Amino acid sequence: MTDENKSTNVVWHQGEIGQADREKQAGHKGAVLWFTGLSGSGKSTLADAVEAALYKRGCRTYVLDGDNIRHGLNQNLGFSDEDRTENIRRIGEVTRLFCDAGVIALTAFISPFQSDRDAVRELNGDRFIEVFVNTPIEVCEQRDPKGLYKKARAGEIPEFTGITSPYEAPEAPDIDVRTADQSLEESVQQVVHYLEANGFLSVS
Amino acid sequence: MTDENKSTNVVWHQGEIGQADREKQAGHKGAVLWFTGLSGSGKSTLADAVEAALYKRGCRTYVLDGDNIRHGLNQNLGFSDEDRTENIRRIGEVTRLFCDAGVIALTAFISPFQSDRDAVRELNGDRFIEVFVNTPIEVCEQRDPKGLYKKARAGEIPEFTGITSPYEAPEAPDIDVRTADQSLEESVQQVVHYLEANGFLSVS
Repeated sequence: MTDENKSTNVVWHQGEIGQADREKQAGHKGAVLWFTGLSGSGKSTLADAVEAALYKRGCRTYVLDGDNIRHGLNQNLGFSDEDRTENIRRIGEVTRLFCDAGVIALTAFISPFQSDRDAVRELNGDRFIEVFVNTPIEVCEQRDPKGLYKKARAGEIPEFTGITSPYEAPEAPDIDVRTADQSLEESVQQVVHYLEANGFLSVS
Repeated sequence: MTDENKSTNVVWHQGEIGQADREKQAGHKGAVLWFTGLSGSGKSTLADAVEAALYKRGCRTYVLDGDNIRHGLNQNLGFSDEDRTENIRRIGEVTRLFCDAGVIALTAFISPFQSDRDAVRELNGDRFIEVFVNTPIEVCEQRDPKGLYKKARAGEIPEFTGITSPYEAPEAPDIDVRTADQSLEESVQQVVHYLEANGFLSVS
């Protein structure tokens, strides 16, 4: 859409509004911040904190996490390998829609398999940012905010990532966040600086 | 989030950003404009035109339609009754996420069954606006933009809504748009006026 079109009253005759138009309106690019890491690594805490920091700057953001996905879009999926892959596939497709809408989508899921994460990167191209919430399992297990490691060690959770099910650490994450070595503020700034340095927070 | 929180540098310690925060930033409410009607009724044309009009007013919008859903999120669904219902269910869940994100989501799907549409209304509560694109089938068949009625009449499409498969017209649509009796601009204004009159285009 050109400026000329916008100045008339019949803008709706001029065709669809596209991603570039929505990004221009937002003042930043659509993007996908894909936080991956073990249970207890701090994915949701960091995603929420990054969202708050971006909100404060006027950015359009949305966090996808277990709370709004598992009991909604993906309520008909279980925990088989097939369902886990479909879980991540659907979330990936939703991030693509948000990105197209000019929103910075942040996701907080363990997403243990590199192939699943790569498929989402494939969908989103250079808008996809893999954020490895790189917290040692010893630290995660010590934090154990939901008591899940304790249950897993007691054999009460059959397939638990990092204990009885593999976690494939990102081979080449775009951002590697060591939450055990720095404060939450420092981790937030690391992510925000990445966005700034890579041109996501402005439109050309 | 209070104004006090926003004035500090540690906003990310104050908890999550919620729908109300995002709507305040957007200057309008999140909403779901659910366009339903026969093939050729003008759902996509109207949804795109309403999006353009809202964009021009600075609103955050996104159109979900066959182009970005059928080959993406719902690529693993066919056309059985079960799959059609799952198709609409997933779209409904995605509209809920966009609405929560403070976006006005517009959908353009035939969505022939009242029960499927009611389920989406249930999800979205008073943010759901059922827009009946109420174009007589004779007019739709005359327009036949994709040549589908011709194929359906020739028996080349086994289950075609309005011909060999039922279309359940909305029992109590929030907006009833008679596209055969008024111009596209008039239809757009009808929808936009509904949003204005019902307080969707401002935040309280």
